[in-house]
Amino acid sequence: MFGIPNITSFEVVALWVILAIAFVALLYALLLRNQIMREDKGAKEMQSVWDGIRVGANTYLRKQLRSILPLIVVLAVVLFLSIYFIPPSSAALLRFKGMTDAEISLIVGIGRALAFVMGAVFSLLVGQLGMRMAVQGSVRVAAASKKGLNYALKLAYRDGTITGMLTNGLGLLGCMVIFMIFGIDSPDVLLGFGLGGTLLALFMRVGGGIYTKAADVGADLVGKVEVGVPEDDPRNAAVVADLVGDNVGDCAGMAADIFESYEVTIVAALILGVALYFTTHQIEWVIFPLLVRGIGVISSIIGTYLVGVGKEKNAMNSINRGFYVSAVISVIGFALVALFYMQEWRAFFSVSAGILLALAINEITKYFTDTRYRPVKDIASASKTGAATLILRGLVVGYEATVWQILAIAGAILAAVLIYWGQGFTFTLYGVAMTGIGMLTLTGNYLGMDSFGPISDNANGLGEMSNMDKESRQSLADLDAVGNTTKAITKGVAIGSAVIAAVALFGSFLTSIALVQQQMGVVSSDTILATGINIASPIIFVGLLIGGAIPWLFSALMINAVAKAAGLMVEEVRRQFKIPGLMEGKVKPDYEKPVAISTIAAQRELITLATFVILTPVVTGLVLGEGALGGFLVGAILSSQLLAVFMATSGGAWDNSKKTIEDGIYGGKGSESHKASVVGDTVGDPLKDTAGPALNPMIKVINMIALIIAPIIIRVSTSNPIAILVGIACVVAIVLAVMYSVRGGFRRTKAGEANF
Amino acid sequence: MFGIPNITSFEVVALWVILAIAFVALLYALLLRNQIMREDKGAKEMQSVWDGIRVGANTYLRKQLRSILPLIVVLAVVLFLSIYFIPPSSAALLRFKGMTDAEISLIVGIGRALAFVMGAVFSLLVGQLGMRMAVQGSVRVAAASKKGLNYALKLAYRDGTITGMLTNGLGLLGCMVIFMIFGIDSPDVLLGFGLGGTLLALFMRVGGGIYTKAADVGADLVGKVEVGVPEDDPRNAAVVADLVGDNVGDCAGMAADIFESYEVTIVAALILGVALYFTTHQIEWVIFPLLVRGIGVISSIIGTYLVGVGKEKNAMNSINRGFYVSAVISVIGFALVALFYMQEWRAFFSVSAGILLALAINEITKYFTDTRYRPVKDIASASKTGAATLILRGLVVGYEATVWQILAIAGAILAAVLIYWGQGFTFTLYGVAMTGIGMLTLTGNYLGMDSFGPISDNANGLGEMSNMDKESRQSLADLDAVGNTTKAITKGVAIGSAVIAAVALFGSFLTSIALVQQQMGVVSSDTILATGINIASPIIFVGLLIGGAIPWLFSALMINAVAKAAGLMVEEVRRQFKIPGLMEGKVKPDYEKPVAISTIAAQRELITLATFVILTPVVTGLVLGEGALGGFLVGAILSSQLLAVFMATSGGAWDNSKKTIEDGIYGGKGSESHKASVVGDTVGDPLKDTAGPALNPMIKVINMIALIIAPIIIRVSTSNPIAILVGIACVVAIVLAVMYSVRGGFRRTKAGEANF
Repeated sequence: MFGIPNITSFEVVALWVILAIAFVALLYALLLRNQIMREDKGAKEMQSVWDGIRVGANTYLRKQLRSILPLIVVLAVVLFLSIYFIPPSSAALLRFKGMTDAEISLIVGIGRALAFVMGAVFSLLVGQLGMRMAVQGSVRVAAASKKGLNYALKLAYRDGTITGMLTNGLGLLGCMVIFMIFGIDSPDVLLGFGLGGTLLALFMRVGGGIYTKAADVGADLVGKVEVGVPEDDPRNAAVVADLVGDNVGDCAGMAADIFESYEVTIVAALILGVALYFTTHQIEWVIFPLLVRGIGVISSIIGTYLVGVGKEKNAMNSINRGFYVSAVISVIGFALVALFYMQEWRAFFSVSAGILLALAINEITKYFTDTRYRPVKDIASASKTGAATLILRGLVVGYEATVWQILAIAGAILAAVLIYWGQGFTFTLYGVAMTGIGMLTLTGNYLGMDSFGPISDNANGLGEMSNMDKESRQSLADLDAVGNTTKAITKGVAIGSAVIAAVALFGSFLTSIALVQQQMGVVSSDTILATGINIASPIIFVGLLIGGAIPWLFSALMINAVAKAAGLMVEEVRRQFKIPGLMEGKVKPDYEKPVAISTIAAQRELITLATFVILTPVVTGLVLGEGALGGFLVGAILSSQLLAVFMATSGGAWDNSKKTIEDGIYGGKGSESHKASVVGDTVGDPLKDTAGPALNPMIKVINMIALIIAPIIIRVSTSNPIAILVGIACVVAIVLAVMYSVRGGFRRTKAGEANF
Repeated sequence: MFGIPNITSFEVVALWVILAIAFVALLYALLLRNQIMREDKGAKEMQSVWDGIRVGANTYLRKQLRSILPLIVVLAVVLFLSIYFIPPSSAALLRFKGMTDAEISLIVGIGRALAFVMGAVFSLLVGQLGMRMAVQGSVRVAAASKKGLNYALKLAYRDGTITGMLTNGLGLLGCMVIFMIFGIDSPDVLLGFGLGGTLLALFMRVGGGIYTKAADVGADLVGKVEVGVPEDDPRNAAVVADLVGDNVGDCAGMAADIFESYEVTIVAALILGVALYFTTHQIEWVIFPLLVRGIGVISSIIGTYLVGVGKEKNAMNSINRGFYVSAVISVIGFALVALFYMQEWRAFFSVSAGILLALAINEITKYFTDTRYRPVKDIASASKTGAATLILRGLVVGYEATVWQILAIAGAILAAVLIYWGQGFTFTLYGVAMTGIGMLTLTGNYLGMDSFGPISDNANGLGEMSNMDKESRQSLADLDAVGNTTKAITKGVAIGSAVIAAVALFGSFLTSIALVQQQMGVVSSDTILATGINIASPIIFVGLLIGGAIPWLFSALMINAVAKAAGLMVEEVRRQFKIPGLMEGKVKPDYEKPVAISTIAAQRELITLATFVILTPVVTGLVLGEGALGGFLVGAILSSQLLAVFMATSGGAWDNSKKTIEDGIYGGKGSESHKASVVGDTVGDPLKDTAGPALNPMIKVINMIALIIAPIIIRVSTSNPIAILVGIACVVAIVLAVMYSVRGGFRRTKAGEANF
């Protein structure tokens, strides 16, 4: 059964238990949802603002669905055809059962297409349900603040945990279903599942990032800077769009992002585990990552349930306690599995390395972005000589942080090398994949912490707009501050795990090429696994240069898109402020127009950026060959990691240096120093909330696409006329997409017209 | 003779002719110097300010010499020992003549050490003499402006050409001397020559970059922004330091930088040419690059002599005419050599590809930084919504530019692949090296154009301080504006050629490892040339990650150093402005103190940054092996190119957008838009003039060090206890150096104390 030869009865039971755990996670999410929905929604005036947020959020989700659906259908068909015309590389078991190539193509092709749809739908569900629940939660948290800090904390955190449990449940469910149907033939199908999740995450990140920053920059530049009304002032037309944006960016975007990492790490681990199974004939390598995931879900449920239950005065301590409880339970569980099931410790060490890496990344992120440490203090101090010096200091901080973080990741890879010393390439990569699994063990907790951010942010905003008592306001402000820290921590883990996952996928890329080569009659010692990707070869080096450039172009396009949308937003908000009676509070602004501007801007770039991200590896592979495609992946991984961490860190550090000044040093609010720090914060915003986070899913989409086209490329000669035609068509499409994105539509705008 | 078997009498004559051309270039430089020195130095008051510049410049050069000399001596000894204990990999001819290993080690070791000293001294000479001549020239150009635009142009350009001819002459002389003595045994010796030049260039770039920006930022922040006196106002104490800085950065720094590229490309071409000689037994591959260089020098002499001779009204046209004359003569010369000597066209195509690449890079640089095109206009327009949006636009422009430029370089490498299709790896790399030679064919013209920048800038500054008639002032202002454009063009070529040279060096790295492996008994099909550097191997991938991080850390340290120095400068200038009577012009400021601050700051970082740049590849190689060192080089090349072009372009674009606004749009000088553009310019300054340019020599020092230690690494096992100890010692040294640089000395400063 399960398409796995010689499976033991213990393993059969274990697989069913893991499947059951997936459902437990989903049930727990449902339970939490019902708990939240029973809560009071508070005063009427608060509910009316909140209603604007809810409607705005729903509009965004609906429009997003409508622009994405056609692409999902098209890609599902393409994915089916990709298998239908090029028989699958794996499917050893189906072959063993005597099926013909045509039959296998049909079965695996349908499997891949359906898995793709499932991955996409699950990702959508996590993002959409998570965000809806965040919106539902925020108003209830605001109302609950009357019952004290701990109660509000419990509510906000549990609300966030719903997203975490959806991620755990659906992530595990998806790959368990595929694995239980296809068994050791599942790698080709899992790829579809992975691509569905990553692609949707890319859309959510791109759309969400543009949405949130267009609204934010528009609201701040006109409201705070030009007109001089405070943050979250109801007279500012963009204020609802801004609050919706917090959910769209931090909640839906981050949830889809982490879901995708969660999914991709297990996909990579299973592909590599199956590869190990074929050489060692031990199915343990495949079962182990699934067991680890199951244990992680259980530990997360226990740990997250404890947050806000006690009587602590400090919200952060309560969250941390939940985290450590989960961590300890997990490690004990892993050790038991290693001892009794695996009967060896290497896999345990790999997973533990992942937990250590997550901790190291947390510490690095904290040091470079927390107000308590030297870097942020230095940036704040540089404000004394103006915005320019503050910006330069921030750049230095980001540059330094990205160096330390890449060294931490290099250390984790070296750990995998040492753990599997002398065991060969596939084992090491398996170790890297397990490190990724380890990092994301406590996804439930991480997402609880992350969604907690926008929930408490929105609750605080709602509280500010309605008249609440002082104590409740203070509780909400405290929660908001804690939310900023927890968001930053999750961001660091998301980036780190993205690179680890990308490295593991890169490894799968090689094993999958080698498999096809062997089927084509290449002797084992001549496959790509044996010969490697020779970066000294000029063509492969060219691939590396192109790949290294991609994240820079992608970032430029993203920042540009925010700029264009923010420009429209600024005009609209300015127009509304001029409406007679608005400033006096007699006329209510039209909140829906800004929401519409952000929503449309966010959708507009989806297709162009998707075209660019999907087709660039295709062109590189078709024109320069599979080796250059390998170089391309390496270059893209390197640049993405360096840029993403730089952007996240500099952005966070500028943000917090502004907060430091607002707390009273160097003249406090309104001083020249403060103005300089606002410039820094505004520069950092699109870096840390738009371009940087979108690089995580981007790098994995590129790797996934490479994995899927690799078998096609090595079968098609690069001098094949059809390949050349397809290559040329792709180049044209990429150029058009980039031009469309840069120019803001195909009409040529006058210089500066489409501007901030 | 010449250590070259079977050399024809034509080749013997050709080599002597090339050597003679080197002397012709030097004689031409002397001739130009005498022409300049005969000119009038103008009014007395101008001479007194100029005297300050001259003394400041000399102080800098003297101090610099004193800090560098000990390091040169130490490194010369280390280089000798590196050969003495590990016998040279080449030296086939000496071996053939029956010399023992010990004798060969002694001869080649002494050769390498002396070549290193020669490279360093030549680089120093080019930088120091070029800068001294620029200082001498500026006052004479200012005085000559009375005789009309064309006369002043001719003088300024010829003055700049002296640096160009020194580069041509000394660059060619050095490698001809080595080649004529060691013949086909010269690669190991040439490495010493190359390292000497690159290391000095690194020092000049680091020191010059810190010097010029510390002075500039200090002068501007206090003078222009705080006190409100105009640019180049004699009451500003930092004004002389600022003018000295222009020479130190743009003149000495750029001259040493281009000299080093000029030198390194020929070193790489000769190493690869010798490698081809060993497989094809055709010495033509070695002689060809030398012939190309000789032709380039002659063309440059003719072309540069024509600038300013005619009666044009437009200085830029006159400079361009000289450039095109040189280019046409060169191409005809190359074609003749290809036709009659090489009797094949591939080498000709490679060199021509280099000329095309230089043109492509010029166009890209122009598009992204020239005030006439969309990018700079967009940045200027973004100033309407403040400094933050202007900064973001500038970042986008830099990100886009770096993508196009890396694609141009990728195209050049692909051209080399196509030209030598099917000829194997060494041929392709030889093609890349010849592309680099092609790019730098017209070094004489480029350096003439570049040095022309600070000369006319200083002349304009001197003119502003003394009372000159309106027409002369206009001529000087025109020359200054043209100088900004020519400087930008040279910067682009310098960066592009740096990467091409680095790729060629990377190729030499592989051929040199393969040679040692063969001597150690590794069969040809198992050497690194055959197996390649497998980037899919986790350890090599780790090397790539570390290498990719290096340019980011280096940039952070450089910007940081400017920040610290500028902080001291700001305090000093503020102090002096408070001296009673100074603002009224009754008391003269103390110009020497700011000069001393910049000079000391520039020297302080030299040793720490050199430690970091030299030791990082050593550690990576010793601890992770030669494969990881290869990955390290690839990562470093990729990141350097992307960062360097981004920094140069964004910086240049911000600078020019400020100029656009100063010309009157968006409110002109003093408007809010102008203030925003000043912030952009200040952020861009250390990027484009300090960190960016220093990456060029950095990347080549790293490659050179890798080339030199490669033979040692593959002989020493990575588990050798001495290797481990050396590795640990290096890591400690690097950490100390980085900490020293970040903290500003080993005492712990309070947060923000050492600030902008």
